[in-house]
Amino acid sequence: MLSKATIKDIQSLQHKKFRNESNLFTAEGPKVVDEFLITGYFECEKVFATSKWKGWQDEKLLATLGEKVELIEDFELEKIASYTTPNQVVALFKIPKTPLIKAEKQSITIFLDSIQDPGNLGTIIRTADWFGIKNIICSENTVDQYNSKVVQSTMASLGRVNVGYTNLENWIEENRQVPLLAAVLNGKSIASRVVTTEGVLMIGNEANGLSQALIEKADELVTIPRFGGAESLNAAVATSIFLYELTKR
Amino acid sequence: MLSKATIKDIQSLQHKKFRNESNLFTAEGPKVVDEFLITGYFECEKVFATSKWKGWQDEKLLATLGEKVELIEDFELEKIASYTTPNQVVALFKIPKTPLIKAEKQSITIFLDSIQDPGNLGTIIRTADWFGIKNIICSENTVDQYNSKVVQSTMASLGRVNVGYTNLENWIEENRQVPLLAAVLNGKSIASRVVTTEGVLMIGNEANGLSQALIEKADELVTIPRFGGAESLNAAVATSIFLYELTKR
Repeated sequence: MLSKATIKDIQSLQHKKFRNESNLFTAEGPKVVDEFLITGYFECEKVFATSKWKGWQDEKLLATLGEKVELIEDFELEKIASYTTPNQVVALFKIPKTPLIKAEKQSITIFLDSIQDPGNLGTIIRTADWFGIKNIICSENTVDQYNSKVVQSTMASLGRVNVGYTNLENWIEENRQVPLLAAVLNGKSIASRVVTTEGVLMIGNEANGLSQALIEKADELVTIPRFGGAESLNAAVATSIFLYELTKR
Repeated sequence: MLSKATIKDIQSLQHKKFRNESNLFTAEGPKVVDEFLITGYFECEKVFATSKWKGWQDEKLLATLGEKVELIEDFELEKIASYTTPNQVVALFKIPKTPLIKAEKQSITIFLDSIQDPGNLGTIIRTADWFGIKNIICSENTVDQYNSKVVQSTMASLGRVNVGYTNLENWIEENRQVPLLAAVLNGKSIASRVVTTEGVLMIGNEANGLSQALIEKADELVTIPRFGGAESLNAAVATSIFLYELTKR
């Protein structure tokens, strides 16, 4: 039986402030939680699972978890999960120290300026992982990678991609050695671009795009060709199409 | 002042059953509502707007709307909106008769098998509109295009793309004249494909992909090349990358 204090502590992890204070974040559902546990991407602090969770049949996993795993009831799961239809398990993991992210030679780095929607950030992390991109650098006002909706929509890819937060301007000054590509609505078609193996792809805010200051710093302005009526593309969709084209071999 | 009965009627439109009975759907926020009103994509039944709505300054629009527009308070907007942070306006539009969708020669048609997430369907409609795709055909168990979250995430593109629901098997039998491409995880790389100008792109359910029966009917199995660790791509992201590649000139 979970105490009121425990429930309150877990619920507080929905807020960035409390995640930062405790250095913990939550993951939900067997797809993400099980993969984090099996791969060890993140150090596990605690697992709360109902009897439906398949992990109860995995003796090796249970031995590793020891007292970190606790059987709870469905109504308790509902209280600690952020989703309205929670699924079997909620787990707490330790937030690792954010690596200092550099734009590596011979690879593509993603740069996100003020992405606000958790689903968009999660989907970008998942797509980056699909295309083998290792590093994403975010402006300080981009949504937190440990927001539970971000974690969920990465589908466990959060463990395979480095995501860092920093001041853009400073970061760009230190990463001048690879080309900076700015995603805009009136640039050169990405389809006509010569294949590249290294660079920083800069993606802007959902409603306002990239800031003028960042556009001015870019080496090249790139655009996804449009043949229809929509004013813009969803930020995660646009990022994904750029990544597909840039990583094509 | 909205009556309790009016509030209940509007809330009931969150359910497909009531939308079908009344032939009405809701759109929210100025971005989508204003575009629907200005373009006339859908016949307007009623507009409920707070004093913040910019439409109040558009005399031509107000003359067209006549008694169809009603000033409401913020607390009333909260009651009739599906979003927890509603924005200025909720409007009711008439559901048009769904056109019979055929796979046209010299164009790409999208076929969606059991897409469940409203955000995914909305994003696919928006992206289709960007790439000039006019027709989307959905299996009968795909999420409803007039679901308020779908409407919202199309960003008004719903007015420019035909979306129809039908039985897949029958539809395919009648559309054998253009190539059927099935999006799968182990097909031929879409990047290596010869440019096509016509065809049906078949996209499967978020968790389970395309059904085996549909895969067997395909003329070609196509895949987005993977270089990293993610098991799959988000359905809307995958559709968008395919559309980008298929419409490239």
